[in-house]
Amino acid sequence: MSTQAINIGIVGGSGYTGVELMRWLLRHPLARLRVVTSRAQAGEPIAQSFPSLYGCDLCFVDPADVDWSSLDVVFFATPHATAMQQAAEILASGCRVIDLSADFRLRDPALFAQWYGVEHAAPQLLEEAVYGLPELYPARLSEARLVACAGCYPTAVQLAAAPLVADGAVAPHSLLADCKSGVTGAGRGAKVGSLYSECADSFKAYAAGGHRHQPEIEQGLSELCGSPVRVFFQPHLVPMLRGIHATVYAQPLRANTDWQAVFESYYQDHPFIVVRPVGSHPATRDVRGSNRVHLAVHARDERVMVLSVIDNLAKGASSQAVQCMNVMFGLEPATGLDAWGMQP
Amino acid sequence: MSTQAINIGIVGGSGYTGVELMRWLLRHPLARLRVVTSRAQAGEPIAQSFPSLYGCDLCFVDPADVDWSSLDVVFFATPHATAMQQAAEILASGCRVIDLSADFRLRDPALFAQWYGVEHAAPQLLEEAVYGLPELYPARLSEARLVACAGCYPTAVQLAAAPLVADGAVAPHSLLADCKSGVTGAGRGAKVGSLYSECADSFKAYAAGGHRHQPEIEQGLSELCGSPVRVFFQPHLVPMLRGIHATVYAQPLRANTDWQAVFESYYQDHPFIVVRPVGSHPATRDVRGSNRVHLAVHARDERVMVLSVIDNLAKGASSQAVQCMNVMFGLEPATGLDAWGMQP
Amino acid sequence: MSTQAINIGIVGGSGYTGVELMRWLLRHPLARLRVVTSRAQAGEPIAQSFPSLYGCDLCFVDPADVDWSSLDVVFFATPHATAMQQAAEILASGCRVIDLSADFRLRDPALFAQWYGVEHAAPQLLEEAVYGLPELYPARLSEARLVACAGCYPTAVQLAAAPLVADGAVAPHSLLADCKSGVTGAGRGAKVGSLYSECADSFKAYAAGGHRHQPEIEQGLSELCGSPVRVFFQPHLVPMLRGIHATVYAQPLRANTDWQAVFESYYQDHPFIVVRPVGSHPATRDVRGSNRVHLAVHARDERVMVLSVIDNLAKGASSQAVQCMNVMFGLEPATGLDAWGMQP
Amino acid sequence: MSTQAINIGIVGGSGYTGVELMRWLLRHPLARLRVVTSRAQAGEPIAQSFPSLYGCDLCFVDPADVDWSSLDVVFFATPHATAMQQAAEILASGCRVIDLSADFRLRDPALFAQWYGVEHAAPQLLEEAVYGLPELYPARLSEARLVACAGCYPTAVQLAAAPLVADGAVAPHSLLADCKSGVTGAGRGAKVGSLYSECADSFKAYAAGGHRHQPEIEQGLSELCGSPVRVFFQPHLVPMLRGIHATVYAQPLRANTDWQAVFESYYQDHPFIVVRPVGSHPATRDVRGSNRVHLAVHARDERVMVLSVIDNLAKGASSQAVQCMNVMFGLEPATGLDAWGMQP
Repeated sequence: MSTQAINIGIVGGSGYTGVELMRWLLRHPLARLRVVTSRAQAGEPIAQSFPSLYGCDLCFVDPADVDWSSLDVVFFATPHATAMQQAAEILASGCRVIDLSADFRLRDPALFAQWYGVEHAAPQLLEEAVYGLPELYPARLSEARLVACAGCYPTAVQLAAAPLVADGAVAPHSLLADCKSGVTGAGRGAKVGSLYSECADSFKAYAAGGHRHQPEIEQGLSELCGSPVRVFFQPHLVPMLRGIHATVYAQPLRANTDWQAVFESYYQDHPFIVVRPVGSHPATRDVRGSNRVHLAVHARDERVMVLSVIDNLAKGASSQAVQCMNVMFGLEPATGLDAWGMQP
Repeated sequence: MSTQAINIGIVGGSGYTGVELMRWLLRHPLARLRVVTSRAQAGEPIAQSFPSLYGCDLCFVDPADVDWSSLDVVFFATPHATAMQQAAEILASGCRVIDLSADFRLRDPALFAQWYGVEHAAPQLLEEAVYGLPELYPARLSEARLVACAGCYPTAVQLAAAPLVADGAVAPHSLLADCKSGVTGAGRGAKVGSLYSECADSFKAYAAGGHRHQPEIEQGLSELCGSPVRVFFQPHLVPMLRGIHATVYAQPLRANTDWQAVFESYYQDHPFIVVRPVGSHPATRDVRGSNRVHLAVHARDERVMVLSVIDNLAKGASSQAVQCMNVMFGLEPATGLDAWGMQP
Repeated sequence: MSTQAINIGIVGGSGYTGVELMRWLLRHPLARLRVVTSRAQAGEPIAQSFPSLYGCDLCFVDPADVDWSSLDVVFFATPHATAMQQAAEILASGCRVIDLSADFRLRDPALFAQWYGVEHAAPQLLEEAVYGLPELYPARLSEARLVACAGCYPTAVQLAAAPLVADGAVAPHSLLADCKSGVTGAGRGAKVGSLYSECADSFKAYAAGGHRHQPEIEQGLSELCGSPVRVFFQPHLVPMLRGIHATVYAQPLRANTDWQAVFESYYQDHPFIVVRPVGSHPATRDVRGSNRVHLAVHARDERVMVLSVIDNLAKGASSQAVQCMNVMFGLEPATGLDAWGMQP
Repeated sequence: MSTQAINIGIVGGSGYTGVELMRWLLRHPLARLRVVTSRAQAGEPIAQSFPSLYGCDLCFVDPADVDWSSLDVVFFATPHATAMQQAAEILASGCRVIDLSADFRLRDPALFAQWYGVEHAAPQLLEEAVYGLPELYPARLSEARLVACAGCYPTAVQLAAAPLVADGAVAPHSLLADCKSGVTGAGRGAKVGSLYSECADSFKAYAAGGHRHQPEIEQGLSELCGSPVRVFFQPHLVPMLRGIHATVYAQPLRANTDWQAVFESYYQDHPFIVVRPVGSHPATRDVRGSNRVHLAVHARDERVMVLSVIDNLAKGASSQAVQCMNVMFGLEPATGLDAWGMQP
């Protein structure tokens, strides 16, 4: 295992995945956070924006002032359509890239354009990009120059569905993922719909006409089992800060499957995946602030149902990105990721 | 329409459906609330327990001290297995009964025993009892002596599913109801699981092994369409006070159905049911504190999906009970029920 | 008492005091809501912005299209510096004005300019304007053409402090008001600081350098007792939707005052003011959605402390404005204002 | 600095300070958590009670089965009146004791009996007990056998007030602490008043007749400045999980004090205390999950005001107890305590 320090930059540090990334990296024994960019706040102490970071003396810098070649890896914690503009230049400097946004997740640039409403600016990089969800897609990750971290919902849903579809145990078109996310998933943009006074003490569905994460989930699961998988995906907004709860339903093709055994076996070598005992109801609280995933599997009434919880900012974004970095740089995967969930 | 005042008693006024019932009845132009019982708090001013009711001078009374024959109707706002002990005596005194608990909802006493873990104490009343969900089951309600108000989830789910199953438009075994409820649905009992410190900023499923409301929903919908309907029902707990959001999925049997037209037509004569415009995402907030139901219907990817929101304490319990009372006593159904939702 | 219908307009109906005003006026037996303006949303159904109002068929109109002379009264539910631009024209048309904003509260235009950062556009109206907090300042209200409704904090603090200062019972410079408000007090503007993800599960002070409501409170209490009163006022932000809790401290000048008796006597003729029994701790919940104020008075350790709760959008804004309207138009003050608080 | 591992027991691990203590100790490089007692849950995996701890294989044990002499230190995370029954026996075995409850905080057993309603069971240990708030009371801590950790409110208030009273800069009877706490401060007991449905979306004061933490605060500050200090202390309940916000007011005795300099100087050697820049409004969010304290000092209108925030379960209880342990065992005070606050 490597014990060499890693020089790190973050592009777009003023949002929630950015501050969460700093929270993890500033405690990582081998991470050296050198640069955090923010065009609008260049020169300001980061702690002024995120007072939880008082004690860290870094200031935001203008991205134009960064020498990428001095860094080993750059994380993009930006909205979509930013990383695809800059990744080629950074890679050319010899620095690796871990993108937390959606830019390099879909392999088909036409699909990207359809769902994100903009032409892809770097289609030549799509084939090289490695999808970052280490438990399911470990191949190529250690050598990757460019990693496209899995989305928050896709992480929760694919980890729930993989043991179901992996050996053809369920009808491939029967998958339905009814998902619920905390409000941080909507980002830090100043939108009326994200106001406390709009979201608190209320619950609703959104994107009922179709959501960008559906093709990402379908692409992943289809690759995983080598044949087309369809998932009906419907997200909802929960009045809580962090957390995703995926409730995944499917129709088994065989009776009497011991689903608990299937799941425990499938994830036996993965320390961040906890298959909870029979009869469990994982709460998003159980993994808040941690890189863990809790899964529970139930079967009744001719259906199998998987409950899957993650912290959308951690395993659904920033700590999963650090997990990818660990693999890319030859570290123990759990390095710096051993935080327990915060309860209550 | 009748303009005669109604003399009313409430059994079990110390819980959340009890105080909500008082909130509605104290503003109802023809309701005269005479008696609210609570064995434990007999003699205490109700406002001491529920300070929102300062200005109402009633005190709790011991149920043993009540002369039922002086009342026109008694509401049971008790946990299950109470009303079934007392209903026969009250009915014998000439007073009608509206039960907000589950005691008289299931017609089959064996099914009741199976799901509620106790033998039914008044099976002879089950046939007479009228299920209280006026928009779907109006028959016999005006003459009813004993009404079994629909449960909270069953109200939200049946109103969402009825237009789907009514004319055989969906596969009868394809219905799946992924439901989410605010914490008041768990009642006012002092349980660790209902503490603020356990529920806030978290989300989880519960009763994944099966929930009592599933047979109630299946009984209702099966009656409605005259053949067996199965519903896979899964509830979740949302960190909010009031509100139920049902997301109901089904597989259509015909392509190209104009679902919006189906729903608008089905509910055209029902002022409390709002079929929202195409593309809507009703929030539980939209009906908080009101007797309304908001529905939105979406179709994509070979499925139809209905979003249904109610206030679990109002249309899911107390104001629906008042709506039943209005019908039973020959009043305009909306009497005293014209409150707008509270937003924000 | 008058029984004549009142023709009403609302300027600025797209914010929270606007929708709350509609909630009250649409159930008021004599109110006829004719016009709600919103320049940005002219032509759109109000229910599209505020789905709780489905069932009300009004659309927003452009303010330029309104004939003020057809209305009896116009409410301004706008940010400050709007009403002062338009009030003179509307008054000239013969229509009365009730302003929920701060424009006409401070009698001294220099003080207004100092605290609100803009010159007053209608200083000639300041003397005529009547301060709208009916329980404390009833004089001139029934004849008023122009009413400046009290602010939310000033309502809670002045009602708490009035019995203390009225007869010189406390040191006039000893008053300290530590106040806490729900997030709706910050309005519906899209600001990062008002996001759910910023406010939830957190508590903080704001405006520690001084807040605009302090001079308003001092002006009112000084008038009330005929000599200068100083109040140290400090607001805080609570992760809840509605509600203000004022904790008001003062040093008594006499020992052995029966404060409970002082308060009960002071407010004996005011049905919206509830002086809670000795030892009480009113919660903002107790008055949520109602026009009531709950007060409790405690004395210990050489201090007297008053706890005062209101709903900031109701008694702190919209329902108090309706209460003012009732007085102005010769109605029973409680007309249309008899809603009970919503609990839980 | 010592690098020797510490063998640790926790008495009463089923509450919130217990699980929080485990969260800190399980990541502490020298802590070896050997035993966690719970009479009611003996034999059960801890992770079953606190699923955030899946991955830790400890089970609760019956306290009767513990050999205290095998441990270096025992933490009491119990309600008051438990530690005082058992401390003498444990100390006699050679094991040190860190008590997170109130049993050994007040030096005067009569005062204890008055405020806690029970005679002190171990008055002979009161003189030996060292009060655990290391930044203010470092003396004797490194040699202590028995530490009485400061209460949550007393931590926040004393850290805010110490620089004010230390050099006689404010009137000693003018101190007023208006404090606000999250609901976890009420513990994990199943009480109606702590239910989500009672606390959410509401705010109230409690203990207006006087609270146990007032004498604790007064004892500490009086010792600190060598003369009697009085503090008027009033707590309130905030609908949030963790966090205390103390707003401390005092009357300065001198004009023109540079309070910012006073505070920065007073805390310059204390890494967990962050004196925020002039004009700041610390939020409880800023220190959530961390051992830090954020302070801001403001002066206007002849008063000085200090805003002080802590995490009530961390610096207000469990991480402060670990900080005490570090000092007692000769470790660097920050060992294992370098967690950043979780934001958002």
